[in-house]
Amino acid sequence: MSIVNEKMMGLGTVRSAIRDLFEYGLKRKKEIGAENVFDFSLGNPSVPAPPEVNESIRGLLDSTDSVVLHGYTSAVGAEDVREKIAADIQARFGAKIDKNDLYMTCGAAASLTITLNALSTPGSEFIAIAPFFPEYRVFSEAAGGVFKVVPADTEKFQIRFDALAETVNERTKALIVNSPNNPTGVIFTRKTIEELAAFLRAREEEYGHPIFLIADEPYRELVYEDVEVPYLPNLYDDTIVCYSFSKSLSLPGERIGYIAVPKDCAEHDAVFAAVAGAGRALGYVCAPSLMQRVVKECLGKTSDLSVYKKNRDLLYNALVSCGYDCVYPDGAFYLFVKSPEPDAKAFAEKAKKHELLIVPSDSFGCEGYVRLAYCVSTDMIERSLPAFEALMKEYR
Amino acid sequence: MSIVNEKMMGLGTVRSAIRDLFEYGLKRKKEIGAENVFDFSLGNPSVPAPPEVNESIRGLLDSTDSVVLHGYTSAVGAEDVREKIAADIQARFGAKIDKNDLYMTCGAAASLTITLNALSTPGSEFIAIAPFFPEYRVFSEAAGGVFKVVPADTEKFQIRFDALAETVNERTKALIVNSPNNPTGVIFTRKTIEELAAFLRAREEEYGHPIFLIADEPYRELVYEDVEVPYLPNLYDDTIVCYSFSKSLSLPGERIGYIAVPKDCAEHDAVFAAVAGAGRALGYVCAPSLMQRVVKECLGKTSDLSVYKKNRDLLYNALVSCGYDCVYPDGAFYLFVKSPEPDAKAFAEKAKKHELLIVPSDSFGCEGYVRLAYCVSTDMIERSLPAFEALMKEYR
Repeated sequence: MSIVNEKMMGLGTVRSAIRDLFEYGLKRKKEIGAENVFDFSLGNPSVPAPPEVNESIRGLLDSTDSVVLHGYTSAVGAEDVREKIAADIQARFGAKIDKNDLYMTCGAAASLTITLNALSTPGSEFIAIAPFFPEYRVFSEAAGGVFKVVPADTEKFQIRFDALAETVNERTKALIVNSPNNPTGVIFTRKTIEELAAFLRAREEEYGHPIFLIADEPYRELVYEDVEVPYLPNLYDDTIVCYSFSKSLSLPGERIGYIAVPKDCAEHDAVFAAVAGAGRALGYVCAPSLMQRVVKECLGKTSDLSVYKKNRDLLYNALVSCGYDCVYPDGAFYLFVKSPEPDAKAFAEKAKKHELLIVPSDSFGCEGYVRLAYCVSTDMIERSLPAFEALMKEYR
Repeated sequence: MSIVNEKMMGLGTVRSAIRDLFEYGLKRKKEIGAENVFDFSLGNPSVPAPPEVNESIRGLLDSTDSVVLHGYTSAVGAEDVREKIAADIQARFGAKIDKNDLYMTCGAAASLTITLNALSTPGSEFIAIAPFFPEYRVFSEAAGGVFKVVPADTEKFQIRFDALAETVNERTKALIVNSPNNPTGVIFTRKTIEELAAFLRAREEEYGHPIFLIADEPYRELVYEDVEVPYLPNLYDDTIVCYSFSKSLSLPGERIGYIAVPKDCAEHDAVFAAVAGAGRALGYVCAPSLMQRVVKECLGKTSDLSVYKKNRDLLYNALVSCGYDCVYPDGAFYLFVKSPEPDAKAFAEKAKKHELLIVPSDSFGCEGYVRLAYCVSTDMIERSLPAFEALMKEYR
């Protein structure tokens, strides 16, 4: 008998490529000064929370009995919080979701692990569309599922339906969709989602069981153009929404989000009960109580997105004008740039020589690219541009 | 293929006996008035958080950059927070624990599920000593383990070592110990822990592998007499401490605690890595960032424990003087009262007729008792005493 669970030990020992680069950056900044290192490694919001967040915390401390404010809420979340979030969803998207369809969570990662554990049965397969957030694999496998990947559409970063058709089979339990996307910043168009919905409905009919769409939506509010982000439950019934306030309110450390199981979702009651049961089994007693009340009071607010838009425009335009190839990102805070040589790791190493910290795309399931997180100071971007130009010159 | 995970669905559908009784209480209060129902069902702190909690929140909002205060911390927790907690543990218990041995969590339930998932290997058995917190079974089984119970020592509610010797075997991965105990309020004596440690060391030697002691310690600070609560790592090396600030600071909804893997614990580095990996796999990105800083500033503080002591004295003395048989509780906020008839469920039903809501002990793995949570208003206890007396009269 092993002394500890070796899979868990492996997950706790191997640091992600992103985290490794970030740690290298900390070291490098000490060596040559923070202002001389251009760190694009982490997707950590750089814009402060909107003032309403701290104002509502102060107000709640003043107005609410401590025993209630810091006390357990119901496992699914405080009723008034769920009521207000449901009303907001109804007003914005007209979706059939009420307070009893919402389960408050400790952020997007918790939303995903709870949902995957709720759905996982022996042999279940979970599918992601490349490029994808690397933890999808960790979460799916830890929930007992088999993780499969649909190769990337490297032209428009929508969905390769030919490849999807080969990946989905009778064991497919759910498909994870992340739009606006980490790492590309691309938004799946209504046409893409409609085609996806039609495809999945046909397969559901063929197999005689539902195939769930898990909509991982931490970046829903981070959109910089007049571009629609389709609300998936409106186009495909069997959708489960995993939402987080981490990025929209710049609260990633506070761990607050929700799972929505819309009324029309197949086996609605069973799915919702399994979500509640999985939350219980994983040790999520309730979502943090103060933050539940804070997001209730801050619905519809976001941190100042104009900073991210400015950063995107500045960096995208500069990179393209000096010869980089990059898909135009409508949302999130990432650029997905084609490596000028086939080996993105080698390219990222060369970038380090110019003090540019950028993440090779291999762990996102799509080789030959790098991810730049532009949730950084605009000033740092401006100062980094000569380095990007010098780096490109090496390839001319 | 099932559509959802049926075990999870079961966990989300079947409400606990405690929760059922609590819901009945809400209904009954509407019918006859809240002041006429005596609800002893829930272990929810009734004393507000100490003033330092809200003061430190206000101070942190004023002094700390929003991006830092609400941002991700390291997955193991903010370094300064772990440093201060480790220093506090060293000062109080002299234990060999430093910042690198601490993993901040979303409360005791998260501490337990993460630890159990870190240790669980195929065939692993986890043992609890009756009576025990019912979620131990849920958490152990969800982590893939086999859950076993050592029957209660109904004389002193210490440990029946004869029964323990029969329960521990080569597949035993860990024993969960909860002292002060939910549901009895009893503290395991130094003599008990020393005997336990000697027993486990002998079995470790016999089997050639460690047997971990998981010290579930949410009630450590809730002690009302000059009674020692032995610090388990000081008496048994292979101890993992699962701590929560929920009860000591009356913050149960905020979900903040930690796991400590002391330096002398067997396979220390592997265990700590597996803890970090399990936290990652279960979706715990980091413990809530604001609350990490709050508990750092409130170390050594507690909510006003004199209220619980007063409640305990009042209720214990009144019950004993009208004929109830009850083990004397040194800590936590529960009384474990012997049912005057063998069937505790029948007794609890009779109690309902007197508007007394008390939890039959079956789900705690020890039949024939009821649990009374006295984390309620002293006034309610006073008003409830005639009902307890009338209830006992039915048995004379």
